[in-house]
Amino acid sequence: MNLDTIYQSIKDDLVKIERSLESVANVDIPLLSQLLEYLLKNGGKRIRPSFTLLSGKFYNYDLSLLVPMATAVELLHSATLVHDDIVDNAPTRRGKQSISFAWGQASALLLGDYLFAQAGMLVASTGNLRVIKLFAQTLMTISSGELAQINVFFDRKRAREHYYNWISAKTACLFAMATESGAALSQAPEPIINALKEYGHNFGMAFQIIDDVLDFTGRKEELGKPVGSDLIEGAVTLPSILFAESNPDGNLIKSIIKNQDMDKVALVVEKIRNSSVIDECLQIASDFCSKACQALEKVPVNSARQSLVDLATYVINRKK
Amino acid sequence: MNLDTIYQSIKDDLVKIERSLESVANVDIPLLSQLLEYLLKNGGKRIRPSFTLLSGKFYNYDLSLLVPMATAVELLHSATLVHDDIVDNAPTRRGKQSISFAWGQASALLLGDYLFAQAGMLVASTGNLRVIKLFAQTLMTISSGELAQINVFFDRKRAREHYYNWISAKTACLFAMATESGAALSQAPEPIINALKEYGHNFGMAFQIIDDVLDFTGRKEELGKPVGSDLIEGAVTLPSILFAESNPDGNLIKSIIKNQDMDKVALVVEKIRNSSVIDECLQIASDFCSKACQALEKVPVNSARQSLVDLATYVINRKK
Repeated sequence: MNLDTIYQSIKDDLVKIERSLESVANVDIPLLSQLLEYLLKNGGKRIRPSFTLLSGKFYNYDLSLLVPMATAVELLHSATLVHDDIVDNAPTRRGKQSISFAWGQASALLLGDYLFAQAGMLVASTGNLRVIKLFAQTLMTISSGELAQINVFFDRKRAREHYYNWISAKTACLFAMATESGAALSQAPEPIINALKEYGHNFGMAFQIIDDVLDFTGRKEELGKPVGSDLIEGAVTLPSILFAESNPDGNLIKSIIKNQDMDKVALVVEKIRNSSVIDECLQIASDFCSKACQALEKVPVNSARQSLVDLATYVINRKK
Repeated sequence: MNLDTIYQSIKDDLVKIERSLESVANVDIPLLSQLLEYLLKNGGKRIRPSFTLLSGKFYNYDLSLLVPMATAVELLHSATLVHDDIVDNAPTRRGKQSISFAWGQASALLLGDYLFAQAGMLVASTGNLRVIKLFAQTLMTISSGELAQINVFFDRKRAREHYYNWISAKTACLFAMATESGAALSQAPEPIINALKEYGHNFGMAFQIIDDVLDFTGRKEELGKPVGSDLIEGAVTLPSILFAESNPDGNLIKSIIKNQDMDKVALVVEKIRNSSVIDECLQIASDFCSKACQALEKVPVNSARQSLVDLATYVINRKK
């Protein structure tokens, strides 16, 4: 099933989000306008804002609140990517030059700050204190999660726990914010808000695991970056962790991270691709998706619920 | 008159803000905790949070709202300094190493992001939508103002206008937010909120001009950075602009900025120090302070109003 089919019930409203993103880019500072255009007109999959819309479909579907909120979700996501690319010194993003490489770190940093504020302004326009606090809390979680990741040494025994905490903070919490805010703004009862939040969190965990698997199994053209980029950047993700667990005597992963032994990256990528590790990772991602769909059982049956279930299937099978 | 005397009426409440800043630094991520301690325990003058408290003194002085707001004002200020030091590649801040030099750019960037969010959380805790929007708008103004500053060429004819726009966005708007939010949270009537906002804006303009003068006239030990730092970093501030205006045939300023002709910085600093430019700048700053105090005439007479007047005198005479 493709995204167009899944998004059918919110197709027209996603157009409103694109318009809303365009109006964010409509500013009278030439450099800022140029940066915003480059960043926001990327034809991204818009999964996060679609979550906000779909999660608003169970009670009072009020686009005057959901469109600014969904726009803010996409802006917060984009801003964290721009800042991530500074932190990681990443030359490319989605197959084109990263903002920090094309315009320099100063412009990228200030663009991210501007987007945090612009997103905060849109969230404030809903007048809903719960989602305003949720927004601030999400940015606290994302930035402190990345800080917790700095200077951490690879420890095989604690690696899985550490990894789950990390992807929960960097990815799942934004998906959880997307669904929780949509539900809260539609005046859903508390158990339904929590169910949708749980869906978002578990979906996000699966989404990130698949991302980390694709870094090993994908093709450079589809990924928009070299295969094995995570290891090159020193990030130990689930495939590397399971590989290290199943090869307790080998120290290839540690050697790459500790000694920046880049010659060994291609070898490890090859070994991981040909091992059972990939299937194990996919199984773990699939388990998170099952949990996400279980949470949906508390939610009223309608076409939006089906779309959320379909998205969980889509994410497991995605190739980029 | 010294700050202790001016702050007399809010002395105990400023202690509450210090406690509040300490509790912000109390987090369980070791690196983050260390960064927050280093940044927030700096014995700064706390002028901005004191503005929020003083501006709340005319109507309903509610510390349960004013302390989180004033804390957020200080955090937003600190966060923008941390990010500024990345943008400017500044090795020092307030006489000690900048965060980005001591811990690296990635940590500094993420610390700033975290502080924006933490500040946003504190502002949200007031439950007041006006100050929540004001907070987001202020961060938009600060970051877009800095972006507008990138790649701008020195143009003598437009330099003053450009400078006023720049310092309004980078400095005055934060002071205006400090006073406006204090007034709004104390339920002051609209004309009083506007008068205090106008006070904050004009005070901020004077504050920045004095800062820019001190960059030429101060002593390295008091400034905590080399004399002439602005020119070295390529920033054309009011003293340089007035100097260029009064020497239309000379092209020293342009030559320094355009050709990064660092040998000439000491010469220009010396020329500016010995010219009438410094007195002219002080007069302009003094005019902004008069405007600030004029705005206060609409505000009820009490000891807080006197403190604000005294602060305007203090800022003109400050040496660091």
